[in-house]
Amino acid sequence: MLTISERGIAMPASPIRKLVPFAEAAKKKGTKVYHLNIGQPDIETPAEIMDAVKHTDMKVLEYSHSAGNESYRRKLVEYYKRVGIEVTHEQIMITAGGSEAILFGFFSCLNPGDEVIIPEPFYANYNGFACTAGVNVVPITSYIETGFALPPIDAFEKVITPKTKAIVVCNPNNPTGYLYSREEMEALKNICLKHNLYLFSDEAYREFCYDGEYISAMQLEGLEQNVVLMDTISKRYSACGARIGALVTKNKAVYDTAMKFAQARLSPPGLAQILGEAAVDLPESYFDAPKAEYLHRRDTLIKRLNAMPGVFCPTPGGAFYAIARLPIDDADKFCQWLLESFSHNNQTVMLAPATGFYGTPGLGKNEVRLAYVLNVDAINAAMDCLEEALEQYPGIVK
Amino acid sequence: MLTISERGIAMPASPIRKLVPFAEAAKKKGTKVYHLNIGQPDIETPAEIMDAVKHTDMKVLEYSHSAGNESYRRKLVEYYKRVGIEVTHEQIMITAGGSEAILFGFFSCLNPGDEVIIPEPFYANYNGFACTAGVNVVPITSYIETGFALPPIDAFEKVITPKTKAIVVCNPNNPTGYLYSREEMEALKNICLKHNLYLFSDEAYREFCYDGEYISAMQLEGLEQNVVLMDTISKRYSACGARIGALVTKNKAVYDTAMKFAQARLSPPGLAQILGEAAVDLPESYFDAPKAEYLHRRDTLIKRLNAMPGVFCPTPGGAFYAIARLPIDDADKFCQWLLESFSHNNQTVMLAPATGFYGTPGLGKNEVRLAYVLNVDAINAAMDCLEEALEQYPGIVK
Repeated sequence: MLTISERGIAMPASPIRKLVPFAEAAKKKGTKVYHLNIGQPDIETPAEIMDAVKHTDMKVLEYSHSAGNESYRRKLVEYYKRVGIEVTHEQIMITAGGSEAILFGFFSCLNPGDEVIIPEPFYANYNGFACTAGVNVVPITSYIETGFALPPIDAFEKVITPKTKAIVVCNPNNPTGYLYSREEMEALKNICLKHNLYLFSDEAYREFCYDGEYISAMQLEGLEQNVVLMDTISKRYSACGARIGALVTKNKAVYDTAMKFAQARLSPPGLAQILGEAAVDLPESYFDAPKAEYLHRRDTLIKRLNAMPGVFCPTPGGAFYAIARLPIDDADKFCQWLLESFSHNNQTVMLAPATGFYGTPGLGKNEVRLAYVLNVDAINAAMDCLEEALEQYPGIVK
Repeated sequence: MLTISERGIAMPASPIRKLVPFAEAAKKKGTKVYHLNIGQPDIETPAEIMDAVKHTDMKVLEYSHSAGNESYRRKLVEYYKRVGIEVTHEQIMITAGGSEAILFGFFSCLNPGDEVIIPEPFYANYNGFACTAGVNVVPITSYIETGFALPPIDAFEKVITPKTKAIVVCNPNNPTGYLYSREEMEALKNICLKHNLYLFSDEAYREFCYDGEYISAMQLEGLEQNVVLMDTISKRYSACGARIGALVTKNKAVYDTAMKFAQARLSPPGLAQILGEAAVDLPESYFDAPKAEYLHRRDTLIKRLNAMPGVFCPTPGGAFYAIARLPIDDADKFCQWLLESFSHNNQTVMLAPATGFYGTPGLGKNEVRLAYVLNVDAINAAMDCLEEALEQYPGIVK
């Protein structure tokens, strides 16, 4: 018999997308569904960068350099300089979204059976990339009570084995919105240096920090050889569909190895590189409006959530996600129930059960992730639904 | 010490691109270099499909469905029907180039340590994808004397072990241009059924068949569950930089597994999906001009090559590649010498040493691959260079 691969069987289905059929059924019944379940912003992609693609006079849509167009990489040097990261264009590799940057990083640095430590809850697709690379994710738990701060160093020390090769962090964090402090980044640096670990740093949400100072892993002095930055324009410019990201590292051996994976797939998306390059020329003031908008949404969302009986949601310092604890028996059941059995004024809300963001089984059962990617009116309407739902849901835990 | 992964070390560097620094140096000296080394056509990308992107009124460049836009997949059903392949849109998954389709196929069907049989010479990047997936390539040799026909079935039988899980074919073939006959496709079918093997079929060059009938692996009756088609628009519409391909299979378990890898990376390139969808609406007559042009180039190239003393090049039936045997000691040395130490009227030619396309060490040492992606004048000028070079090269073997 033809068989599916072991890694294919082990590969997790997307926890964010598994409720999609229930959402589709709800919509077919005529119910309006507010999507707070997925990080797809409603902010318009800047017209200037779409126009750059529309005005291209390219006659042949050729392969680009496997590392991406040199002109784009040189522009990105300027971009990174503006955000306090000093790199050369030969330390930047353009990838098909942040996803490919993560894969190239894992493929280049990790062997099957190696372990990577990731503070949980974490971006669920790290599981998929780890599975693809045959790598084992070792979660260490961060807690809602502390706003999902970095677990203390001894939590890292406890799980480090000879197979531990890397720590993965997302800063500001998806799904918690937590923004790591300078002290936490220094603590990460020390543990990486002490145990000789790579630090994979996913900084997709760098521009969206509302409280406190943003520290890039690339700014940690003495850790230059350990850091692999995984970046993407998806959220920055509301251009998720472009599929343009970057792997950035000062470690030449890692870069050269990643280049071999990049060469095998020939080149990153060509049209979208034009868009990405134009984005670097947006004025710095471009971020003022979306950042103010996200801040307004965050404040609305957090206030509404914490006003509901039995609900607790710490205030996220960055990104556009929050994890809330709800007075419910089971977030998976609840999120499905919201779509299948509930409506309020013919509307409902789609949330992501937090269970999919934890590596430790059983955690996150009474937590959900909310992406504040909709405008304030929609957020308020969605919160009206949630408030009403928590009155009606049969699995309420008082 | 921080270490690079074993797979990263094993990962082959691109044999096509390793001569690039020598080409750059030649250009800096003012020498014109004719690039017959890489399958980057000079044919213009159809203006209609570039215009489709330029005229999009999309306000937010959102993630698409992980399998690609449904509208595009439904269009592709029509496209495949026109080329004699009956599939549904739920059997088509849009990928970032053919490369990602190959990776998803390997990841979904093969375990580390599994073996795939590939007739050599073969597309060099199959090595890279196999290495990424931890899979071992077992080459079986096809020979220039027979125009690189499929090796006889007993050559397959000889190398089949319990670890053999698949055969990979490229039809029409890159790098040989060979077009598999109905009998050869039936032979492949029989061996796949007998030994329970997947047939990964790379049909990137389907539209460019000059002699004989094109048979898709998807047309082999009884082999439906075994076939994974790996496709791309790169060459078809001279849109290599778009990075749009497809994995097509009637095997639901394979499709569903590949979907998990697709979901982890969220979606294929969005702007280029618009271009791909528009391409399906090109009139069928679109291919007449590029096909006639490639045929003219092929005939020019093959005639010129076979007129040179000691050179032999079988006539390829499809694609836009040919492998020629030259009277030289070492193709790698010769190709480097062409760039480093030779010029003719201040011009030279860049070729791909065939060694990079063989899995068996030592084979292809007196062969080169030529991509006839330049116009006839350029091909003639390149052949003038090659003819002169074979007069001057110190490593000539008479």
